Amino acid sequence: MRISRLQFFIYETGFVLTSPFNGLNWSIMADLTTNITIKKIASDLKLAVSTVSKALNDSYEISQATKSLVVRYAEKLNYVPNIYASSLRKRKTRNVAVVLSEVADSFFATAMSGIESVAEQKNYHVIIYLTHEDKARERDILKSFRGGRVDGVLLSVVSNKNSKYISALQKMPLPIVLFDRICENIEVPQVSTDDFESSYRITEHLLKKGCRKIVYLSFAGELSTFHNRLNGYKKALDDHGIKLYRKNIVQCSNQHLLNYELIKKNLQRTSRPDGIIASVERLTSTVYQVCEELRLSIPSHVKVASFSNIEVAPFLNPSLTTITQPAFEIGKTAMQLLFKDMEGDNSTKEKTRMRVIPSVLHERDSTQ
Amino acid sequence: MRISRLQFFIYETGFVLTSPFNGLNWSIMADLTTNITIKKIASDLKLAVSTVSKALNDSYEISQATKSLVVRYAEKLNYVPNIYASSLRKRKTRNVAVVLSEVADSFFATAMSGIESVAEQKNYHVIIYLTHEDKARERDILKSFRGGRVDGVLLSVVSNKNSKYISALQKMPLPIVLFDRICENIEVPQVSTDDFESSYRITEHLLKKGCRKIVYLSFAGELSTFHNRLNGYKKALDDHGIKLYRKNIVQCSNQHLLNYELIKKNLQRTSRPDGIIASVERLTSTVYQVCEELRLSIPSHVKVASFSNIEVAPFLNPSLTTITQPAFEIGKTAMQLLFKDMEGDNSTKEKTRMRVIPSVLHERDSTQ
Repeated sequence: MRISRLQFFIYETGFVLTSPFNGLNWSIMADLTTNITIKKIASDLKLAVSTVSKALNDSYEISQATKSLVVRYAEKLNYVPNIYASSLRKRKTRNVAVVLSEVADSFFATAMSGIESVAEQKNYHVIIYLTHEDKARERDILKSFRGGRVDGVLLSVVSNKNSKYISALQKMPLPIVLFDRICENIEVPQVSTDDFESSYRITEHLLKKGCRKIVYLSFAGELSTFHNRLNGYKKALDDHGIKLYRKNIVQCSNQHLLNYELIKKNLQRTSRPDGIIASVERLTSTVYQVCEELRLSIPSHVKVASFSNIEVAPFLNPSLTTITQPAFEIGKTAMQLLFKDMEGDNSTKEKTRMRVIPSVLHERDSTQ
Repeated sequence: MRISRLQFFIYETGFVLTSPFNGLNWSIMADLTTNITIKKIASDLKLAVSTVSKALNDSYEISQATKSLVVRYAEKLNYVPNIYASSLRKRKTRNVAVVLSEVADSFFATAMSGIESVAEQKNYHVIIYLTHEDKARERDILKSFRGGRVDGVLLSVVSNKNSKYISALQKMPLPIVLFDRICENIEVPQVSTDDFESSYRITEHLLKKGCRKIVYLSFAGELSTFHNRLNGYKKALDDHGIKLYRKNIVQCSNQHLLNYELIKKNLQRTSRPDGIIASVERLTSTVYQVCEELRLSIPSHVKVASFSNIEVAPFLNPSLTTITQPAFEIGKTAMQLLFKDMEGDNSTKEKTRMRVIPSVLHERDSTQ
């Protein structure tokens, strides 16, 4: 009864309903073009429609048990408003979300410039969501987009475990493009760099400079980006007949002090490493700090190279050899792909578009 | 007639209405506790309530002229849903907005960590909006918050020209706190650093090191932050009996190449400067680049100091003397103040809370 009047008003006014109790998790929208999904949920669960709607809105009137039941079932049905598909163009928010791990990183800061260069042309706003390497947070953020707060999503993933939430957005359909940290197991446009080849090149560079005991500072995580970089290192060693030692692969994390101690311990080994590759930018200053404390000279005691986009790399003491990622280009290309999808460009309908933009090795004093 | 049924449904279901055509500019929410404001707009303008609601929702059924009339009048009335005031706690989005000029800056990146440290404890998400030093964009972003997408706002201002939009949010009430780039002409909690004193200190430091011709790289803009820094420089010169030359104040901008040419031209003057103060972090690498091109040695030809939070300052060649702002503390304190407001803490009801957290001078080789 209520729902039918509700339908009437939606029809009459063009309003869509969202809940005043709407947190990140749920938003209710009615579907004008097909049967109301909320009705289906109610009928399947043998509940009143009003109970379902209140449960989805986290109403205090509904018990926790019922809420859980309804929310889980709605998730299972991938409950989203069909109105999306029918009038996407009309419902523009002119907002695009960029979801990434952190902004304290030159790569992302520069990628943001690339993204913004396109957004500005198109008169769109970019809103940034930070995941802080947290899978659950990434999941919450992705789910929040179901409520229609943005017209498209650029995502640099934390984990390949959240691919079903990415697929769910695609199905709405909400255009989504992955950049930098990609996720090879899902069919979505992706833009990245040649992580394997870059890592191979930087390792080979150190080998050619005479290094034989190269420590690789890895970053914990199951992402292909990190795997590919590590594999590039391994392959280069192998191709040059250098035996791989497990202890030369050092797993770093987000904890600066822990990283500091780990790197220090490694540089104090009896058989001291003669080369270090930092696979993540933020580890560079830690390496310089440790070398200063241990009075190790770069490059004469140990050569240092890093995946890094820091602007001041040429002015470090010594200047830093880097693999510089095409951050601006990656951001720009990803945003262009997203707009193609948002604008319904049919020429790009293949789902598995993967763009790879190569990184550049800058040889500087830290490896001479 | 429609509205009364609408009211009924809102009352019955707890739903709030938002428009499917809702862009950045408008969102309609009905007010259950007092007279419906939309009714007042309709009556004042002698229009049907449905016309006003459609106009505010940018409906294709309404002429552009009527839309303009309604939107402008609604803005004049500072049209916001009263439901906000009555049930703020219930309607939590658990999102806080951080509005700032750019993320490619160590200050903001570190301030973000401080902000997030509080948000995480409180189980809130932080969403970042970038203004890119653009007043109109800042205004649009501030206006978009009227729609209820966030529970609070942290703002580092572009311009003190947008203070009425800040006040409008306060009146909703939507808690808002300014940080770093503040706006002295409005009554809102603000957290900043001692810009005047810091600048005085760094100038005095260069004077004590023997500099007499100190170029000050300023940043275009009417903000008090920039004024205060410039005034600190002027006062230090004056207190030390050094005449101020206009040409020693160089107005830089967001344009890297223009800044490069300006700084180069200044370092090629017949009476070459013997000191440079960069009042903005991003100018540091430009100064190092120019000095390299002109084969000027830092610090023997020219001493260099910068307002900067870059982590690698001690590892630059030469290591960089900096005024380091308490970025983490500023972000954290601002977020704490915001939560006090969001949680309705009465002990902090004074409107003009201004917190000043001092910066620290790190003397390094670039000024020895």
